[in-house]
Amino acid sequence: MEVHINKNLSLSKNPHKERARMLISCPDGPGIVAAVSDFLYQHGANIIQSDQYTMDPSGGMFFMRVEFDLHELDRKLPEIEAEFKVIASKFTMDWKIHNVSRKKRLAIFVSKEDHCLVELLWQWQAGDLDAEIAMVVSNHPDMKEYVESFGIPYHLITVTADTKKEAEQKQLEVIGDDIDVIILARYMQIISPTFIHHYRNRIINIHHSFLPAFVGGKPYSQAYQRGVKIIGATAHYVTEELDGGPIIEQDVQRVSHRDDVSELKRIGRTIERVVLARAVKWHIEDRILVHENKTVVFN
Amino acid sequence: MEVHINKNLSLSKNPHKERARMLISCPDGPGIVAAVSDFLYQHGANIIQSDQYTMDPSGGMFFMRVEFDLHELDRKLPEIEAEFKVIASKFTMDWKIHNVSRKKRLAIFVSKEDHCLVELLWQWQAGDLDAEIAMVVSNHPDMKEYVESFGIPYHLITVTADTKKEAEQKQLEVIGDDIDVIILARYMQIISPTFIHHYRNRIINIHHSFLPAFVGGKPYSQAYQRGVKIIGATAHYVTEELDGGPIIEQDVQRVSHRDDVSELKRIGRTIERVVLARAVKWHIEDRILVHENKTVVFN
Amino acid sequence: MEVHINKNLSLSKNPHKERARMLISCPDGPGIVAAVSDFLYQHGANIIQSDQYTMDPSGGMFFMRVEFDLHELDRKLPEIEAEFKVIASKFTMDWKIHNVSRKKRLAIFVSKEDHCLVELLWQWQAGDLDAEIAMVVSNHPDMKEYVESFGIPYHLITVTADTKKEAEQKQLEVIGDDIDVIILARYMQIISPTFIHHYRNRIINIHHSFLPAFVGGKPYSQAYQRGVKIIGATAHYVTEELDGGPIIEQDVQRVSHRDDVSELKRIGRTIERVVLARAVKWHIEDRILVHENKTVVFN
Amino acid sequence: MEVHINKNLSLSKNPHKERARMLISCPDGPGIVAAVSDFLYQHGANIIQSDQYTMDPSGGMFFMRVEFDLHELDRKLPEIEAEFKVIASKFTMDWKIHNVSRKKRLAIFVSKEDHCLVELLWQWQAGDLDAEIAMVVSNHPDMKEYVESFGIPYHLITVTADTKKEAEQKQLEVIGDDIDVIILARYMQIISPTFIHHYRNRIINIHHSFLPAFVGGKPYSQAYQRGVKIIGATAHYVTEELDGGPIIEQDVQRVSHRDDVSELKRIGRTIERVVLARAVKWHIEDRILVHENKTVVFN
Repeated sequence: MEVHINKNLSLSKNPHKERARMLISCPDGPGIVAAVSDFLYQHGANIIQSDQYTMDPSGGMFFMRVEFDLHELDRKLPEIEAEFKVIASKFTMDWKIHNVSRKKRLAIFVSKEDHCLVELLWQWQAGDLDAEIAMVVSNHPDMKEYVESFGIPYHLITVTADTKKEAEQKQLEVIGDDIDVIILARYMQIISPTFIHHYRNRIINIHHSFLPAFVGGKPYSQAYQRGVKIIGATAHYVTEELDGGPIIEQDVQRVSHRDDVSELKRIGRTIERVVLARAVKWHIEDRILVHENKTVVFN
Repeated sequence: MEVHINKNLSLSKNPHKERARMLISCPDGPGIVAAVSDFLYQHGANIIQSDQYTMDPSGGMFFMRVEFDLHELDRKLPEIEAEFKVIASKFTMDWKIHNVSRKKRLAIFVSKEDHCLVELLWQWQAGDLDAEIAMVVSNHPDMKEYVESFGIPYHLITVTADTKKEAEQKQLEVIGDDIDVIILARYMQIISPTFIHHYRNRIINIHHSFLPAFVGGKPYSQAYQRGVKIIGATAHYVTEELDGGPIIEQDVQRVSHRDDVSELKRIGRTIERVVLARAVKWHIEDRILVHENKTVVFN
Repeated sequence: MEVHINKNLSLSKNPHKERARMLISCPDGPGIVAAVSDFLYQHGANIIQSDQYTMDPSGGMFFMRVEFDLHELDRKLPEIEAEFKVIASKFTMDWKIHNVSRKKRLAIFVSKEDHCLVELLWQWQAGDLDAEIAMVVSNHPDMKEYVESFGIPYHLITVTADTKKEAEQKQLEVIGDDIDVIILARYMQIISPTFIHHYRNRIINIHHSFLPAFVGGKPYSQAYQRGVKIIGATAHYVTEELDGGPIIEQDVQRVSHRDDVSELKRIGRTIERVVLARAVKWHIEDRILVHENKTVVFN
Repeated sequence: MEVHINKNLSLSKNPHKERARMLISCPDGPGIVAAVSDFLYQHGANIIQSDQYTMDPSGGMFFMRVEFDLHELDRKLPEIEAEFKVIASKFTMDWKIHNVSRKKRLAIFVSKEDHCLVELLWQWQAGDLDAEIAMVVSNHPDMKEYVESFGIPYHLITVTADTKKEAEQKQLEVIGDDIDVIILARYMQIISPTFIHHYRNRIINIHHSFLPAFVGGKPYSQAYQRGVKIIGATAHYVTEELDGGPIIEQDVQRVSHRDDVSELKRIGRTIERVVLARAVKWHIEDRILVHENKTVVFN
């Protein structure tokens, strides 16, 4: 049985073979930008874009993202990383250099609702997500055939109240350590603290957002009862605090009393898929720095 | 000492001398629209605009707003109201006819923050709020001179923990019953249930809104700490449940990590003044119907 | 060779077996709403939603959309339509009653860019477009396999400068008269006046929109050169005036100097697919009335 | 005759006594960021925020904005500026350092429509525009009393077809060279090329924007006739090409067929005042770099 997809869509080409992105977080102080930019200049790098942000000029945190081109990047990168340690140490930096030509590996978790998964697959297929979708993990078989039609492995790992721990163990095994980000694309199971700890700041979740927030079940029904005029969605990194992790992106849409619960849900799905896809894109492009419970997004 | 204002701005003219607006809420059932529109037709009214909405076709509530022109409205209105009682009774209607040429009377409550008051005064002066600002009530003297420069009475009624009850009694006296809507334009005192009951669905409040909602004090600091990407404001009718009344209007603006607490507050003030002014405009134009804890806004 | 699609998505169910929608345009005058609503009441219809709009109370056009439920609609509709002619004639109405249970038939035209087609297919598959996609017509073979995988006929009709007339003749033949709306989903061929005339107010096109408008080729390059801060898209009915027909829907997104031409195009594609899908949805739900070169959209 | 204003509003305090902002445009090349940041570091400056942007990595323009604190800025600035010339010369930089404690001087031009002027005065009074409003220039006497009530000089310079040249000469005299930006707040006279040349990239204009653009008079009537769904406004620097200069900011609002021409104008005024005030704020905060007919806005 063969399965076909929209071959008209070309997969993303990566035109940036010699490009890298450097992310830095450290306590603010004089000379950081000078040291970093001089270092890159001495090593022959050409800065394409550079963003900085200081939380509080008097003693706050400093964040920096530098995108640069470097001839023979693959060969020189190990050496550069080794030498940068001197600067990093001097300024107590938390830092990382990403080689753009090495595609990030994604694992997408999904349950039954498929709108977020479908949007991600579509954007990926259209070349708008410059990454490798390494696998889809689900507690339901529903999306298996569809996902596999893209040539993407589908791991069905059933989760019940009794098998929760074993299921998570299996998930850890199939995912492994060679994964850059896990996307909870409407995955309706609670993730354990152990799992979260394993992939700190590497799990992205999407959930609806309401003004005001509605506690308890059936939030769309509550939103309808209350007659809200705006509904939204929030993409965030997953932390031990349920839906309380660092916010990556949010968006909203105007609604009216004419929108019944099912229409509110339909609109909500559209916001969710757009917001999640934007958050994933920014993560892939190394645009997000996390400090405590907050993100700095250089977009 | 004379005080002057922007005389260049013309106060609102009312070109609709023979226009009325009818608001109806009742249990849905067949024949309502036919009965109302036939009644108006028989009385010589010309329907300018008509909006209807049924919450749930099988047994829900029905809402209707009809704007119509009628020759010699002032003279005929009492007779029409009397005759409409037959229809209203048949369909168990909650209804009201507003004569557009009778300007609504507003009382604005303010404390120290003046952005909402200033916007309302400005829109009123520019002719965009077709109403009479009957008075401003405040627990602080700060805005007295400015308000009076518009020719609007300013009632300073100090409120302390000890004099709360007396203060509210004084407020009730200066406001009286001939007021159509009370606007809490950043009035920072709790309103008592007695007061709320007296002006049911006639008190409009504005407050900031965040995704997620932040419990406790200093919400802008919390929003900054959490790195929210969107902040907003909600205008609602005041009920006994604090900030829990029927929502009239909401709006939001995108923010980023670069916006510090004071910048978030500045943006918040701009959203608040725009959202409150819209809610007041809709109330004045009889566009809002309240059912339980929800509004139907025909705009 | 088998081809598979996302079977998890359920096709739209139509829960409104006995629902109809009536659209009316006529010169304004007293008694129209009364006559229509009384007529429906006399025939046992229950009005679910009704919208009216008068362009200019003194002698302008009047527009009305009534959604109603009627027991045994299929059986009674011919009789109702026959009897309504008396009222229609009295008020010189342009009118139509749509039986909601009869799904509208769509023909989608596409060339090589597929984002709009894919969005429509996806929304249709998710049950958000309550219609039948009767066929896809294209001047390129690229999307054939993908479209047919949904069970939708794909008509490849090549168009060259020499064969333009014959090609259009073939298009007319495959489409026929039993089609409710033709959607130009980035179809990059000029449509002839004859074709437009044949499907008056039944052809929807989508195109990018810029502030300011850019004359000549490569509008995205021009927009980039000019440093626009907002880009958008417009869905409109096709008339003889190129891109000058009645506007159905528009939307925009904020961009910045950081967005290069290819990023502007990517953002543009997202706006185009959202705006076109909304316009198609409103057409399918009989929410659009056209008067001269303008739409009245009851949404 | 005394005139009074809202004294409750405190004028902007400038807490940044030792802060400066540096703006740089030059052809891109390696070592620029390193040279600038090292220079600032060597002179004891602490970088608060730094933004860079390269139009095209291979041979495009490079833009940089650095905000920094420096102890004893007033005393050291002349020396720093002198020494920076070496770096500036090496990289062929167009550059400027702005001392934040020196408030920018604004001249506002107005005719009869006052919404933009009133917004600017209000934001200025609320402390949200950190600048000095040096004067208001008008071809009409209408706003004289209101403007002077803020303690701002009002220069009435009548303009007729015959006196156009003399009027502009008078304007040049009252404005002089010590002005940072001229704001055309709905000033309805054409500015001559000579005048524009004199204040290159220092004149900001606001005008309405429509999708599509409407050629000829009465654009709001045309927009209404055409049934546009979105209207907007554009703030731009004035060049010899009418309304064709570098765009600083744009915004839009959704409208519907229900909005008649006067309502469209009312909405348009609100967008205009918000967009113009944002553009002025960014200019005052040295956030805008102009290259050819395009802006780079670091906000």
